[in-house]
Amino acid sequence: MFFNQLLEFLEKGESGVERYSILSNPEITSAASLEHAKENEISFLEKGSYLINQFDKTNASALILPDQESLIQKAVSKNISWVAVQDPRIGFAEILEKLYPGFIPIREIHKSAIIGDNVELGKNISVGANVCIESGSKIDDFTIIYPGVVIYNNVHIGKYNILHANAVIHPNSKLGDECVVHSNAVIGSEGFGFVPTKKGWKKMPQTGIVVLENNVEIGCGTTIDRPSVGQTLIKSGTKIDNLVQIGHGVTVGRDCAMASQVGIAGGATIGDGVILAGQVGVANRVKVGANVIASSKCGIHTDIEAGQTISGFPAISNKLWLRCAANFKKLPEIAKALRKLNQ
Amino acid sequence: MFFNQLLEFLEKGESGVERYSILSNPEITSAASLEHAKENEISFLEKGSYLINQFDKTNASALILPDQESLIQKAVSKNISWVAVQDPRIGFAEILEKLYPGFIPIREIHKSAIIGDNVELGKNISVGANVCIESGSKIDDFTIIYPGVVIYNNVHIGKYNILHANAVIHPNSKLGDECVVHSNAVIGSEGFGFVPTKKGWKKMPQTGIVVLENNVEIGCGTTIDRPSVGQTLIKSGTKIDNLVQIGHGVTVGRDCAMASQVGIAGGATIGDGVILAGQVGVANRVKVGANVIASSKCGIHTDIEAGQTISGFPAISNKLWLRCAANFKKLPEIAKALRKLNQ
Amino acid sequence: MFFNQLLEFLEKGESGVERYSILSNPEITSAASLEHAKENEISFLEKGSYLINQFDKTNASALILPDQESLIQKAVSKNISWVAVQDPRIGFAEILEKLYPGFIPIREIHKSAIIGDNVELGKNISVGANVCIESGSKIDDFTIIYPGVVIYNNVHIGKYNILHANAVIHPNSKLGDECVVHSNAVIGSEGFGFVPTKKGWKKMPQTGIVVLENNVEIGCGTTIDRPSVGQTLIKSGTKIDNLVQIGHGVTVGRDCAMASQVGIAGGATIGDGVILAGQVGVANRVKVGANVIASSKCGIHTDIEAGQTISGFPAISNKLWLRCAANFKKLPEIAKALRKLNQ
Repeated sequence: MFFNQLLEFLEKGESGVERYSILSNPEITSAASLEHAKENEISFLEKGSYLINQFDKTNASALILPDQESLIQKAVSKNISWVAVQDPRIGFAEILEKLYPGFIPIREIHKSAIIGDNVELGKNISVGANVCIESGSKIDDFTIIYPGVVIYNNVHIGKYNILHANAVIHPNSKLGDECVVHSNAVIGSEGFGFVPTKKGWKKMPQTGIVVLENNVEIGCGTTIDRPSVGQTLIKSGTKIDNLVQIGHGVTVGRDCAMASQVGIAGGATIGDGVILAGQVGVANRVKVGANVIASSKCGIHTDIEAGQTISGFPAISNKLWLRCAANFKKLPEIAKALRKLNQ
Repeated sequence: MFFNQLLEFLEKGESGVERYSILSNPEITSAASLEHAKENEISFLEKGSYLINQFDKTNASALILPDQESLIQKAVSKNISWVAVQDPRIGFAEILEKLYPGFIPIREIHKSAIIGDNVELGKNISVGANVCIESGSKIDDFTIIYPGVVIYNNVHIGKYNILHANAVIHPNSKLGDECVVHSNAVIGSEGFGFVPTKKGWKKMPQTGIVVLENNVEIGCGTTIDRPSVGQTLIKSGTKIDNLVQIGHGVTVGRDCAMASQVGIAGGATIGDGVILAGQVGVANRVKVGANVIASSKCGIHTDIEAGQTISGFPAISNKLWLRCAANFKKLPEIAKALRKLNQ
Repeated sequence: MFFNQLLEFLEKGESGVERYSILSNPEITSAASLEHAKENEISFLEKGSYLINQFDKTNASALILPDQESLIQKAVSKNISWVAVQDPRIGFAEILEKLYPGFIPIREIHKSAIIGDNVELGKNISVGANVCIESGSKIDDFTIIYPGVVIYNNVHIGKYNILHANAVIHPNSKLGDECVVHSNAVIGSEGFGFVPTKKGWKKMPQTGIVVLENNVEIGCGTTIDRPSVGQTLIKSGTKIDNLVQIGHGVTVGRDCAMASQVGIAGGATIGDGVILAGQVGVANRVKVGANVIASSKCGIHTDIEAGQTISGFPAISNKLWLRCAANFKKLPEIAKALRKLNQ
């Protein structure tokens, strides 16, 4: 594909094309990061990116840039075709979609798949090898189910879902449209509910369900438990990374992002647009307000108001935490100074 | 089912029924939490529960209550049928068992299951689609194995076990009776044992086994490793949540509870009745005494005496930690005050 | 096998045999730890090991010891056959290999395996029940694939690999020779790359690949993501424990060791010989120098120079951290002393 063809494609997209120069209109065969790009490859640079120091060395044939004169001049001086856009990262995502259209499995029910009684299968779906769909479940049109997936009974999977290999969906779970469940994720397993009795732990039956709305993404090995009654709910547009635990009865708002190894304990409520970095923990029944950002390893034990940026354990405002953490390193000095004063 | 029938059932159970009032004897079709309960639904309230403020708004037709006059009066004034018990949570668990008897898969060996040589299968067991049981393994009566489970060779699974979809049980593992292994859990995999040599890491062969006693529950994605020699042992009644790591050669006592994402390093010993909250870590060979409670994200690096409640990293008494954490937030002030004094 | 036969075997190995005494040349049928060893069992003791206090009670018939006169005298006085070596742990590993030769599955393609078009299968490989290998993939000689493994399209698995049950390998991944992928691990899944837009999170296509060089080991449930462009690379000899997350575009050096539940965020670079203890986190794009050792739960947010031993969050030198942590416990006293001074 030539650079001018990619430009045409970008102009139909969301990146906000401002201006460009085709120069020699190179053929673009693939994409790469600025430091690894070779001839006939396209790359991108974001405003203020740490990669700016790779610019002089890049061998890319074309670049997606923010609309900054100095960068454009650099591209021109290196004879690199360029396009300046409002959001280079969106532009790069669109170019990757164009250059790498992705593998679409054959739309068939593999002969080794085991389909239970009263299962309803939509049109143009793909069911891979050794998939097992138990009785009463329903799979809507255009959904792709990769090999080894197990779907228990009475599950409803909407349209255009992708379920990756060996994922497991437990009874009565409901997935909306355009969700992605990655390999080995488990949706709708029994919540960890046990009641202490004189004879030991008694299981609280977990009769509720898990609901994923639309356009939700669940990472590899991530586990989302169902509650004793009611539902565990992940609202539309939320993206969850690998090895995350979502406890029973949790509600997660719209368009949240959770990095790997986050753990949300039972009954917590996470507002819309919340971002949780890696290894964050949220305690039982805590309410985290909309658009809260929690930095990595943060431990959230009390309700957090909307819009806060928080850090540490127990979580405090990120600003305060940075100052506390800086002083933590000085604790031996502080203790020493105090001893001196007390002599 | 009508409320009086549920009462009869409760009176045979463990919740400790004290008194009740049937009132209009409503039909009870399902159960829900206090805030979500609708007509013909039963709910419960625990002593001192934060849900007390939902009482006035509830639409439940029946309630399981602690034996407190004020609560009973409230129920009566709202014309809600009620039963007062010693432990409402146990009562609710029993009611859920009654109302939702649970799905029992067909007792058959699915035709797609692959059963190795010299496998012994008990009576009334259920082996799901695409299950693989390798040679020399033995499955006792009434055990249920869901689709996609892989059981390596010479495993012994006791009676009334439930193995959920895509779980993996490695060679020579022994499971007692009435255990539950949730989806994608891995029991008996090789411990992480490597010896540093001049040529790099040399694998220490992991020739030991994993033993789960009776009534043990292992969460989704949880991994329990076998040791180089001897055994990794989880004693009866212990419940382990999702995505927990139990290292090689660990011993976990009876009736413990471990929340999600706990990690126990090799050779540690956990006493009876220990409770570890989410994301707790226990270091190599540490001994944690009976009935210790560790709060979330706690890092346990040294032996802990029985009965302690601990927090923080490194773990200290919870009481002390709460005071330290409160002062951590004041570190910038403390440093400032000290600078002032030193001027 | 008799003790003299094991000695012959040890002398060909890497443990560095110094001297020995066969005494009654006992038959050795198995191996055990010092405290659990019974008659006809062999055990070992390392220099300075905490197990020294078990020596007097051991019932082992033979011991691998460091070359220390006092230990040898003890063995002689208890009539235990002994061999003194430079590295007893290596010696014990070699003896375990000899005594427990390990289960080798039959070299066959199980009739239930699903093999796609244009799949190349090497000689003497073993493909277990219900394995699925998608089109275009290539498996080299002597590789063992256990039941339930799913290999997507265009994957290349080298020689002498072992893939345990229900592991998943995503498209275009490349594994070198002699790697081990444990049960339920996921290699090459889509990186967690989303671009914020006015309409919510837009997926950044993940068109890169994951490369494992030779002799790499990946724990159960561990997830290794592929990047948007380029590769995620794990270099030769590196060993990764269970439930670890390796983000997209990470490079891990040679001969590293990572304990369970470590998380490495996207784009980080880990040098050769790095050791990360349990639950350590490494932030986006951070560079960790060669031979760094990070203690458990450490949070690494900034580049770390080679050779450091670090602890805490944010990570500081282990020496400083130990002093800070000791003072953290005294914060209530420090605050009190300061209040007193200010009166």
